[in-house]
Amino acid sequence: MDNDALRSMNWRERLYIIIFFTNTPAGKRFDTWLLVVIFASLVVVMLDSVALYSDRYGGLLDSLEWLFTGVFLIEYLVRIYCHPEPRKYIFSFYGAIDLLSVVPAFIALLFPDAEYLLVVRAIRMLRVFRVLKLTQYLSQANFLMVALRGSKQKIIVFLLSVSTMVLVFGTLMYVIEGPSRGFTSIPISIYWAIVTITTVGFGDIVPQTPLGKAVASLVMITGYSIIAVPTGIFTAELATAMRSDSLQQRCPTCEKLSHEANAAFCSRCGTQLFKRNDPDSDRSQGSLERQSD
Amino acid sequence: MDNDALRSMNWRERLYIIIFFTNTPAGKRFDTWLLVVIFASLVVVMLDSVALYSDRYGGLLDSLEWLFTGVFLIEYLVRIYCHPEPRKYIFSFYGAIDLLSVVPAFIALLFPDAEYLLVVRAIRMLRVFRVLKLTQYLSQANFLMVALRGSKQKIIVFLLSVSTMVLVFGTLMYVIEGPSRGFTSIPISIYWAIVTITTVGFGDIVPQTPLGKAVASLVMITGYSIIAVPTGIFTAELATAMRSDSLQQRCPTCEKLSHEANAAFCSRCGTQLFKRNDPDSDRSQGSLERQSD
Amino acid sequence: MDNDALRSMNWRERLYIIIFFTNTPAGKRFDTWLLVVIFASLVVVMLDSVALYSDRYGGLLDSLEWLFTGVFLIEYLVRIYCHPEPRKYIFSFYGAIDLLSVVPAFIALLFPDAEYLLVVRAIRMLRVFRVLKLTQYLSQANFLMVALRGSKQKIIVFLLSVSTMVLVFGTLMYVIEGPSRGFTSIPISIYWAIVTITTVGFGDIVPQTPLGKAVASLVMITGYSIIAVPTGIFTAELATAMRSDSLQQRCPTCEKLSHEANAAFCSRCGTQLFKRNDPDSDRSQGSLERQSD
Amino acid sequence: MDNDALRSMNWRERLYIIIFFTNTPAGKRFDTWLLVVIFASLVVVMLDSVALYSDRYGGLLDSLEWLFTGVFLIEYLVRIYCHPEPRKYIFSFYGAIDLLSVVPAFIALLFPDAEYLLVVRAIRMLRVFRVLKLTQYLSQANFLMVALRGSKQKIIVFLLSVSTMVLVFGTLMYVIEGPSRGFTSIPISIYWAIVTITTVGFGDIVPQTPLGKAVASLVMITGYSIIAVPTGIFTAELATAMRSDSLQQRCPTCEKLSHEANAAFCSRCGTQLFKRNDPDSDRSQGSLERQSD
Repeated sequence: MDNDALRSMNWRERLYIIIFFTNTPAGKRFDTWLLVVIFASLVVVMLDSVALYSDRYGGLLDSLEWLFTGVFLIEYLVRIYCHPEPRKYIFSFYGAIDLLSVVPAFIALLFPDAEYLLVVRAIRMLRVFRVLKLTQYLSQANFLMVALRGSKQKIIVFLLSVSTMVLVFGTLMYVIEGPSRGFTSIPISIYWAIVTITTVGFGDIVPQTPLGKAVASLVMITGYSIIAVPTGIFTAELATAMRSDSLQQRCPTCEKLSHEANAAFCSRCGTQLFKRNDPDSDRSQGSLERQSD
Repeated sequence: MDNDALRSMNWRERLYIIIFFTNTPAGKRFDTWLLVVIFASLVVVMLDSVALYSDRYGGLLDSLEWLFTGVFLIEYLVRIYCHPEPRKYIFSFYGAIDLLSVVPAFIALLFPDAEYLLVVRAIRMLRVFRVLKLTQYLSQANFLMVALRGSKQKIIVFLLSVSTMVLVFGTLMYVIEGPSRGFTSIPISIYWAIVTITTVGFGDIVPQTPLGKAVASLVMITGYSIIAVPTGIFTAELATAMRSDSLQQRCPTCEKLSHEANAAFCSRCGTQLFKRNDPDSDRSQGSLERQSD
Repeated sequence: MDNDALRSMNWRERLYIIIFFTNTPAGKRFDTWLLVVIFASLVVVMLDSVALYSDRYGGLLDSLEWLFTGVFLIEYLVRIYCHPEPRKYIFSFYGAIDLLSVVPAFIALLFPDAEYLLVVRAIRMLRVFRVLKLTQYLSQANFLMVALRGSKQKIIVFLLSVSTMVLVFGTLMYVIEGPSRGFTSIPISIYWAIVTITTVGFGDIVPQTPLGKAVASLVMITGYSIIAVPTGIFTAELATAMRSDSLQQRCPTCEKLSHEANAAFCSRCGTQLFKRNDPDSDRSQGSLERQSD
Repeated sequence: MDNDALRSMNWRERLYIIIFFTNTPAGKRFDTWLLVVIFASLVVVMLDSVALYSDRYGGLLDSLEWLFTGVFLIEYLVRIYCHPEPRKYIFSFYGAIDLLSVVPAFIALLFPDAEYLLVVRAIRMLRVFRVLKLTQYLSQANFLMVALRGSKQKIIVFLLSVSTMVLVFGTLMYVIEGPSRGFTSIPISIYWAIVTITTVGFGDIVPQTPLGKAVASLVMITGYSIIAVPTGIFTAELATAMRSDSLQQRCPTCEKLSHEANAAFCSRCGTQLFKRNDPDSDRSQGSLERQSD
């Protein structure tokens, strides 16, 4: 989209294009600044939790937090103002995230001790994805999503098997080691089994009896081996997703179905293949519908 | 299976269809409730092991355990009653699991201190798979099983190699570090080697001599590198399993099931293969036979 | 190989077939017993290192060790006697391993305090592979070896990159954290970097300064991400190895090169493919040369 | 390149060929010695940091460091002297690394306490890659680089998702556990989340409340599962890179390099492709141009 096209629109339309899309120079500058402000506000939230800094620069950090809240509030209102369907935006995923960037500061005025608001503030990080969403990364993230969606059922079967193992091994360790050696209850033993089967191994609870160590060895080798399962599932799905991307046109002469990405000629018989309307252009087409939220 | 077909059966047949299958609305409701009761009973077992809760709500938790035992007992008897071949059910894998959900409570009456019964109670979790077994997850779990079975021999070779490494490294560390630095015996040193090679790293035993640290580094890098082996094995097998499924068309002559992509002739007997029309039709057929257990 | 063929040989030849191969009933029995003795001798070595058992059953364990040494000595002498080329056997890999199963006991008579002999005893475990070598696991282990050999150069490049990272990160942490916080020297810091990058994380040395923690986070995320590299290398090689196994004959009609494993007919044109002399028979042929060592 | 060709050149050209390439016997000897000196100088740097050795052999280690610095200085000057375009060499990547091998010793004369120079010294390790660069490992490293470059965007999306998770989980744990249980600030909690999600698990900070343990379990299982993502990405890219290499034949019309397996026509321009006869011939050609830096 060039600057001339942009100039022919009215003010509100231009604002909409700049704020919600990245394919204009102004839109790119807006997104870059938004990223800077988001990261700066996250740094302020983090520094404020460090006793050393909050004691010394508490006032400054509070002021900055209010400044960023102000910026996000203005941005939120402008987004509502310029969106063609404000209601749709407000109830969209990113509309909710945008609102959540603003409210904690005001709620904190009412309930100054509400520490849980910190988590709400951290959720601001999700806004970073909205900026990325509009770039080249979109299609790459799509591959990952397709692969994850394709492997959903296998992942559920896998997680359920792991849960069963963790439950049985945890109970077993509780019975073997007993409360006097750190395995104070079945939930704690299950926590230990998760720490061990995921190969994290904090070392805050460790088996002390020979039998406990033998079972722990079994848990560790199991964990080490079954890490192969999610990896295998995801790799196989991702390979399929990447392959099927180039799988979209039948050769009119020899009926060969799968072709290389961006193939212009069939590699078996040399017949010219027709582009499906230029893969990049149709991404920028229709993008208004898909990318607005 | 529609409701009319169900109504034309007698009471015992209807019960059988409802309890053992999920393709009726009543069967789905039954399975959902069964899942709820199984998870609830597991939660009770877990809470009872936490000193805080067992002291305060011991009586309530015991009553609940008896309630769930009663439910499982009734369910077990009904399953025996309505199954066309009760003997076959009783000696099946899930028949045994169903029985194990009931007996611990009664054995606990005779031997009140038998802590090992807790493990038997945790095994109830396996019943969750029976419910899943009848759904869409079945075919996905099958993929995983086919891949695991196909990689069995390679996994055994791998585990044997790891065992050898763990034995040799464990003995080496015992000799290098010695009993005074936590490596009190060869079995303990082997336990340490397993903790390290699987990258769990509890930190309860750590090498303290420079030579011991050098050998430990070697163990860690080995463990980090060979994690690739089970992953590679499983991924390669899973990819094969997934690919061969999409080509699953039975050869009309020799009944060979899986064929190469785009195969026009059976590679075993040379019979011409016809493109299959409805990939799902043969999956929905015959499902009653395959899913009963 | 059937029993009649075996009976027509002289005593020494029969012994050779029984001891060095597994395709006779007697050979299978011999291998099974050998496995039992190897594992029993390893258990004795392990138990002898546990103070509790060596104090109480020291005499018994010593006697058992001498018994197993005697068995291995006799086996070694019989192997030399019946092998057609004893010299070749003695200087082969397994010949050396067999000798190493015997000598530690005798050296221990001369130097009773030589603890390093324990490691030599643990090396007995390698003999287990000789037994496996002759079974169906051979071809599976071959796949793994082909994949490992194919990925050797990539693995070296990878290990060199990891070494460089570990060296640079280790030096960096030494400079940042300093001797007073556990990072007492560059080698120790490199050891810490290896513990961290392999995701083992013992926790005996941990960064304590904010900058140290930031660098440690970088090391951890690097380690977590690059675990993908050996896995990717190995998986890609293994997939190639498994695929190329079925890649060995050109179709005489349509010149299609790659075929399914054990394909008897070309899947593209239906032409009959000639077996390369039955893959299983040629494994049992020529096996005398290959499997003797 | 044979010795006769080398002899016909003048002294400076011969030096250039020997120092910058490995395909002459003299060049191979030069590279081997360079590797030895690099590793020896790194060992000296490491030993000097160990209090025990630096106290006892401080003078010797300092002398050796000066000796190696002298060798590297001479080598650097010779490289500048014999390179056809000295300016290009000086500002190349390896030119900078070569300079960094020399300067720390001289800067240390001016600022004797500048510990950060140690890191600069460790960077010498990178010179090892220049030697490897000229060998067979080049093409293998290229595969890895192609795969890494191809997966760059997916890796960025992945790392951003992990950052978001780590930020949100870290803040959550700070709120749940609080400063009194080791989670003293949000940055520290984020550090803990990184330690946990990468399955390192030092154990210096561990959750102590039941809710904290539940969230920690979630973090661990997340970390354990998503390790599949970079592995899957990299494996899929590497498989593509390896496959496309075996098909590398340049299209005579459009110069497209990689083609589908068994491609008979170029998929970009439709030109017929001829089967290539000698896969290695074009690799040994033109190697002089490609390998100089």
